[in-house]
Amino acid sequence: MRNRYVIIVAGGSGSRMGVTMPKQFLPIGGLPILMHTIRRFRVYSSAVQILVVLPAEQIPVWEALCRQYQFEEPVLVIPGGKTRFQSVRNGLEQIRAADGLVAVHDGVRPFVTPELIRSGFETADRTGSAVACVPLKDSVRLVQPDGSSLAVDRTSYRLIQTPQTFQLILFKDAFRASEQSFFTDCASVVEYAGYPITLIDGSYDNIKITTPEDLEISEQKLRSIE
Amino acid sequence: MRNRYVIIVAGGSGSRMGVTMPKQFLPIGGLPILMHTIRRFRVYSSAVQILVVLPAEQIPVWEALCRQYQFEEPVLVIPGGKTRFQSVRNGLEQIRAADGLVAVHDGVRPFVTPELIRSGFETADRTGSAVACVPLKDSVRLVQPDGSSLAVDRTSYRLIQTPQTFQLILFKDAFRASEQSFFTDCASVVEYAGYPITLIDGSYDNIKITTPEDLEISEQKLRSIE
Repeated sequence: MRNRYVIIVAGGSGSRMGVTMPKQFLPIGGLPILMHTIRRFRVYSSAVQILVVLPAEQIPVWEALCRQYQFEEPVLVIPGGKTRFQSVRNGLEQIRAADGLVAVHDGVRPFVTPELIRSGFETADRTGSAVACVPLKDSVRLVQPDGSSLAVDRTSYRLIQTPQTFQLILFKDAFRASEQSFFTDCASVVEYAGYPITLIDGSYDNIKITTPEDLEISEQKLRSIE
Repeated sequence: MRNRYVIIVAGGSGSRMGVTMPKQFLPIGGLPILMHTIRRFRVYSSAVQILVVLPAEQIPVWEALCRQYQFEEPVLVIPGGKTRFQSVRNGLEQIRAADGLVAVHDGVRPFVTPELIRSGFETADRTGSAVACVPLKDSVRLVQPDGSSLAVDRTSYRLIQTPQTFQLILFKDAFRASEQSFFTDCASVVEYAGYPITLIDGSYDNIKITTPEDLEISEQKLRSIE
């Protein structure tokens, strides 16, 4: 398989958590969330190169946490941009190789499995892209500009997760675009450049930790894993 | 306020749980899920009339559980139909009043709050309907008939929950329709009859327990509430 990279994007603040510590640094099971996430990629492969994008002002905090927790995984830490698009692009600029595969993953999704990471790299190696997603469990309604809403067919929709994995050559091409307001994830950037998106099965377990409730759930999940 | 009713629909089997006990009867915090759900409505008001729709073959099991747990909330138990639509209609047929308000709620959503129940009744009293929903946290893609997919604007979509509360007069009218394959919830039935749907803010806490992971999360949530 080609060279594999992962860009872990950890740009969050603690605002939705009601704390000042950025959420990716909050501990679950006694270890900051971001360290769990990094370890999942290391468990997948000792060969994957890990880049972590953090807001510049958080980098000293991260370095202090690495010393505190004696966390010695070799990762390249890169200052983020103002938006997720810019943060991913900052990470991507550090990858010199022209050929290879790159996964982008949320720093606050620590329950990604080695199997899902592998599935992403293998599918992207074959098709160009691999975007993890899950079906919607609930009914869904489309809100109209006038505030009214309409039932839509939920079986046609997928909730998008990470990892989102791509061939480097097309991913670099896609990120040459000017940023658009509808770039909500990497798939939307790659799609805008005209490349097809392959969906792969993610998992309901692969949650994004964004609220205090998620943090509690994560503690519980971790206890049931260990 | 008009007379208030709630139809609690508990039609699930244990199949997705990998157990033979129907999921609404599984205990969390030492009490079957359905009993927690019923209690939430009782906490909201001692005046609300509670109807519980269960598959006919589960009614003796429910009665045995009520004895075992000395659960004495006055509820009317009604045999369900083959589909959710038919189960709700069976419940509705037991409500003789022409005027009033009726909430429909999933038996396996035990974390509904008295505030959300109240908000549903008050809004429906004013507007005719009140359907709990939450914004999507994740990016969403629309899968096309050819298997390809397209990014869509997630801010235009809402995930639908229960309670879904309606004025009895329009709800009874809507349920005179023949069942349609796109009836995934009560809102879709009422909408089909031509009535407008009012959305109200639900809560991410108001989860529907459908998998073993949900059950674990629920145990944890319950511990943090108590």
